[in-house]
Amino acid sequence: MAKIDPWSSQAIENYEHVFKEFGLKKFPDEMKKKLNHRFFKRNIVMAHRDYEKILKKIQEKKPFINITGIASSGKLHLGHLVDIELFLFHKQMDAKNFFTIADIDAYVSRPDNKMPSMEKAKELAINNTAHVLALGLNEKDLYVQSNYEKKYYEFAFELSKKITKNMFEAVYGHVDLGKISASLLQYADILHPQLKEFEGKMPSITGIGLDQDPHARLTRDVARRVNHEIELPSFVYFKHQSGLKQGTKMSASDPYSAIFLDDSNEDIKKKINKAFTGGRNTAEEQRKSGANPDICKVCEILTFHHPEDDFVKNTIENEKKGKTLCGDVKKMTIEFLQEMLSKHREKVEKNKTLAEKIVLG
Amino acid sequence: MAKIDPWSSQAIENYEHVFKEFGLKKFPDEMKKKLNHRFFKRNIVMAHRDYEKILKKIQEKKPFINITGIASSGKLHLGHLVDIELFLFHKQMDAKNFFTIADIDAYVSRPDNKMPSMEKAKELAINNTAHVLALGLNEKDLYVQSNYEKKYYEFAFELSKKITKNMFEAVYGHVDLGKISASLLQYADILHPQLKEFEGKMPSITGIGLDQDPHARLTRDVARRVNHEIELPSFVYFKHQSGLKQGTKMSASDPYSAIFLDDSNEDIKKKINKAFTGGRNTAEEQRKSGANPDICKVCEILTFHHPEDDFVKNTIENEKKGKTLCGDVKKMTIEFLQEMLSKHREKVEKNKTLAEKIVLG
Repeated sequence: MAKIDPWSSQAIENYEHVFKEFGLKKFPDEMKKKLNHRFFKRNIVMAHRDYEKILKKIQEKKPFINITGIASSGKLHLGHLVDIELFLFHKQMDAKNFFTIADIDAYVSRPDNKMPSMEKAKELAINNTAHVLALGLNEKDLYVQSNYEKKYYEFAFELSKKITKNMFEAVYGHVDLGKISASLLQYADILHPQLKEFEGKMPSITGIGLDQDPHARLTRDVARRVNHEIELPSFVYFKHQSGLKQGTKMSASDPYSAIFLDDSNEDIKKKINKAFTGGRNTAEEQRKSGANPDICKVCEILTFHHPEDDFVKNTIENEKKGKTLCGDVKKMTIEFLQEMLSKHREKVEKNKTLAEKIVLG
Repeated sequence: MAKIDPWSSQAIENYEHVFKEFGLKKFPDEMKKKLNHRFFKRNIVMAHRDYEKILKKIQEKKPFINITGIASSGKLHLGHLVDIELFLFHKQMDAKNFFTIADIDAYVSRPDNKMPSMEKAKELAINNTAHVLALGLNEKDLYVQSNYEKKYYEFAFELSKKITKNMFEAVYGHVDLGKISASLLQYADILHPQLKEFEGKMPSITGIGLDQDPHARLTRDVARRVNHEIELPSFVYFKHQSGLKQGTKMSASDPYSAIFLDDSNEDIKKKINKAFTGGRNTAEEQRKSGANPDICKVCEILTFHHPEDDFVKNTIENEKKGKTLCGDVKKMTIEFLQEMLSKHREKVEKNKTLAEKIVLG
């Protein structure tokens, strides 16, 4: 059996075997058409489990639960935007919104040299909260794991009785008490909105990276076993944006691997100029043979984040045909990101006091 | 290495090897003299770890933490009184009191056929809370696991990072997610009063049965590893009162094994009359050779619960010498328990509304 370790930092190269083996579904074209967002059009959202239930609620204009979150383990970077924007996409519908700032998870599932204390996790939680508020979440759309309702904690502990050691080991390959805690909280994050003390039974949607599917499957197994009336949670699976260097993931521990949401205009310029592209060695060669945008990290940024379909399509085509040089694309991308993130940074500043209040109470 | 399974229901016959192997200390006579309670005089409290720290605080009239609790897994019986009375003994000193009604623990550490839901655990928690209030605890002396402060839950999860699978298995012999949850909550119960958000660092005392020592040792190991300034918790170890039948423990699943705190006068009479004694087959034989009070369950009840030292001593001596018959001792014990428990039952009735408020909020 293929195992996917959700804590592994290796990029997953080949998704196809996972689709097949674990029963994920691709989005049919007619479903994508109904979902007016670039993530669906551009195949950034790759697959789903039970999205039909959510689409039905959207079309009927009926409520469903919109639940996702981020572990406050570091600064936010462009790679985090997919998850957050998917949440905002569903928030526009008649969704009941639950965005988790997972500070306890961030602390218990990381070694002390990466996350030394709950204080540190909360400090990062304040930072992350200010960013998600700046991106368009409201105070009532989110909660912090360490500062929430009693029923949530009771439920997280309650779930432990529904998971055997074998279920856990089959998914994770090992048992570690910190990771057991983190997992219990994650299952509670996804399932608790359906408790009668919250919104009650209804379909729920959570966006996750494909490498997080073991969590999704175990969460659904747990949902089948709980003593409460709940729907199996639905999931959509998105592609992870890769790092700025060749063959890497975005990582908080390597500043040049990613554009962080609080990077300065100068940082953005430096990082994009150093980013790996699919360009040729000389301008002449590129004009003659064209570049390879499929491996170009700058084109990837545009594909993930630039809102205009035509602009992205033309830019990539022109690069491929050698009509533009990578330097030109970098220049446009720098301008695009500087504008986007300088506006964002202003909003983050305005939300810092509220973020502190939300996290520390 | 000898292992003691804290969830085993087998009575422990021989304590001596545990004292030696695990480094427990007996109470020296001069220490017992300073502790004016029948449990110390009558060797019901058998051993301790670091009680010196508590005795010092008592003598200096300085505060220390008094923390114990009961899992709300059934009705309370006479066997539970030792733990509760030890708590009340320390409460009279300048103690900071934390009595845990462990409803989540009761649910997650027991199979569904014994504890089917959190609702059932809370129903029992209300019953147990009414009883401990009737015994002399105040509302502010106790808390319910499912209805407490956020910091407590954060701390319970936080502790999971400080316990390796090997530490857990060395003590319990197995890993089970429900029991991991129960244990995390138990460590949090004992250690959280020392957090700065509660009373801050100071010695703490917890009374436990000797078969619970693995918990105590692992709790101290965890205390050494946490990121907070805390004292290692102290423990006193009490003898478990045995069941009314020969060779049994008191058990909620066998009504004739125990006197429950809400038994009627009629129940008490029936159960004591059926109890196992060390008596002879005939009155004549008993008058001639005397009985064996060491194995007599009725004498054991008096030793554990009757407040007058001289009465208990004389009763046991007279039975041993054959001056009294077991029937006479049973009659006195029935009267003693009927008086004690009928007063108690009245107080329980008066505390039911408050108990419901405490548990359900």
